[in-house]
Amino acid sequence: MKIPERILLAHGAGGRLSHELIEGVFLPAFSNPELESLDDAAILPELPPGRLAMTTDGHVVDPPTYPGGDLGSLSVNGTVNDLVMVGADPLYLSWALILEEGLEGEKLRQHVESARRAAEEAGVTIVAGDTKTVPRGRGDGIYAVSAGIGVVPEGRRVSDRRIEAGDAILLTGTAADHGATIMALRHGLEGPGLHSDCAPLNHLIGELWKGGIDIHAMHDPTRGGIATTCNEAASRSSLRFLLSAQAIPIAPGVYAVCEILGLDELYLASEGRALIFLPGNQSEAALEILHAHPQGRDAASIGVVLPAEAGHAPVELETLSGSLRPLDMLSGMDLPRIC
Amino acid sequence: MKIPERILLAHGAGGRLSHELIEGVFLPAFSNPELESLDDAAILPELPPGRLAMTTDGHVVDPPTYPGGDLGSLSVNGTVNDLVMVGADPLYLSWALILEEGLEGEKLRQHVESARRAAEEAGVTIVAGDTKTVPRGRGDGIYAVSAGIGVVPEGRRVSDRRIEAGDAILLTGTAADHGATIMALRHGLEGPGLHSDCAPLNHLIGELWKGGIDIHAMHDPTRGGIATTCNEAASRSSLRFLLSAQAIPIAPGVYAVCEILGLDELYLASEGRALIFLPGNQSEAALEILHAHPQGRDAASIGVVLPAEAGHAPVELETLSGSLRPLDMLSGMDLPRIC
Repeated sequence: MKIPERILLAHGAGGRLSHELIEGVFLPAFSNPELESLDDAAILPELPPGRLAMTTDGHVVDPPTYPGGDLGSLSVNGTVNDLVMVGADPLYLSWALILEEGLEGEKLRQHVESARRAAEEAGVTIVAGDTKTVPRGRGDGIYAVSAGIGVVPEGRRVSDRRIEAGDAILLTGTAADHGATIMALRHGLEGPGLHSDCAPLNHLIGELWKGGIDIHAMHDPTRGGIATTCNEAASRSSLRFLLSAQAIPIAPGVYAVCEILGLDELYLASEGRALIFLPGNQSEAALEILHAHPQGRDAASIGVVLPAEAGHAPVELETLSGSLRPLDMLSGMDLPRIC
Repeated sequence: MKIPERILLAHGAGGRLSHELIEGVFLPAFSNPELESLDDAAILPELPPGRLAMTTDGHVVDPPTYPGGDLGSLSVNGTVNDLVMVGADPLYLSWALILEEGLEGEKLRQHVESARRAAEEAGVTIVAGDTKTVPRGRGDGIYAVSAGIGVVPEGRRVSDRRIEAGDAILLTGTAADHGATIMALRHGLEGPGLHSDCAPLNHLIGELWKGGIDIHAMHDPTRGGIATTCNEAASRSSLRFLLSAQAIPIAPGVYAVCEILGLDELYLASEGRALIFLPGNQSEAALEILHAHPQGRDAASIGVVLPAEAGHAPVELETLSGSLRPLDMLSGMDLPRIC
């Protein structure tokens, strides 16, 4: 079955061309018995014991292909990581595409292949899919929406309500690589060493669970970056987070792009990092585990949780000069279509 | 919290405006503990026993609002019905939106309210959501992608592989109402009595399960209509389906629109009907149950399943004059963005 040269509106009409697309592009990539039944819904094998978790994520990243990833892998990893952030082991994903008329079939195939590889790497199965088409000028090549389910095994309880004063705040790698890569590309600033951190977090975080670390809360700092993510968690836990500028690992290329474009690394998205809140006395053990894993080599303790205090913002950054700078949520329209 | 006058790109950037949208528009509609946790993924209550089913559906219908429904209700019912078609009781949905810059906040609120009402009617809970924004000219107001999970209780086994010669083919209501309504609207042919059949099918089909009907297979004839859906099922079961033109219920308004626009009712989408394959000797009992339900008043037995036979197409229609017309799958680009 061949790959179409360009996507036509009829590829989304549910008729013969839709079937050719399924058989020529999707089934060869996502071969599994649940999907291959081509029924209206997939019937899943028995799940491991635990509480079920569910999430969804849309992706409209512009440009859709960039150093370190593309929309295909991003849309798989984004949903995998959202599940991991609540303590779940991700298991099954659905994947829906909205294709613009005229999209090259070969580009579609590349995103599908990236999604396939990302699913394989994360150990999840894509069991359901859907494709719609829109006319030229009503889309932008390819948009993807994934949804996923996973299981939280007995004994894991991850929630902002568990964050407490004395907790350490770890970041599993350098900050802002994904956001800086996208912004650099939009401004024609490609350079060696600059690439998205997009990756599945289940294997890395799984090592912490295996090591007996009592993770209180976790978030992947995607849209809005570390600053926004910390503000959300601080407001839900009614505590104060103090971050250290010196401690936050930033790749040299990311630092350079932010200098040139006037961007703040703390507001740029990561797509393969986790912020982890855990008891301060487990911080060292956790870092040791993270450093032993290829994805956690640059992990660092970047802050501490304190009791809320009048006169202090919920999230503050201790700058290199030692002064305290309040970190608010992302405001305004700086960074659309970053993911 | 107020509803924005128009959607800005920043409403999808993950910062302050994203939060205002969540708190002003989404949370008031979809109030439930799983969603309100606002965690990266929702943790679900314990599921009833049975096999888990999962599906996804994207919706890009043009126009997005039409007599009998809108994109909001369509995207809930579409996923609910896909779950029902494999024998599942639908339980939880995710809902992701792709909004075009400039969309009126009030229009968004209307779609959200429709989705809320549809979920309530179907008895499902929307536990996860996501919103992305794209610039003007890169979308068309609103696109929505829903995913859903449900549970197939012990004892239900619905699959095209169970279809056998001697089965009756029932249609739970009139054909093609949704597709004809959309096409009429696009051609300025509004008229009384023409409206989408969009509805959740779980309550109606639930009556058949309660009545002990042994449903072999089920499909909702959406994109591609009855003809395409029957072709898919016939090819998977390697049998021959013979439909009766006289028996297929068509609303007078739908018939008129199809005459005027030169469309074939058998290729137009329904969004609240099911094609049911069941043992011929249960056909009458099933029709009695369906007729007693408000959604099944016009249900009819529209065909029979026969052994495959050389010289006959897999799906044939006995016309009003008694001749046999082969019904192929939908080909070409007749009907884009019908759902």
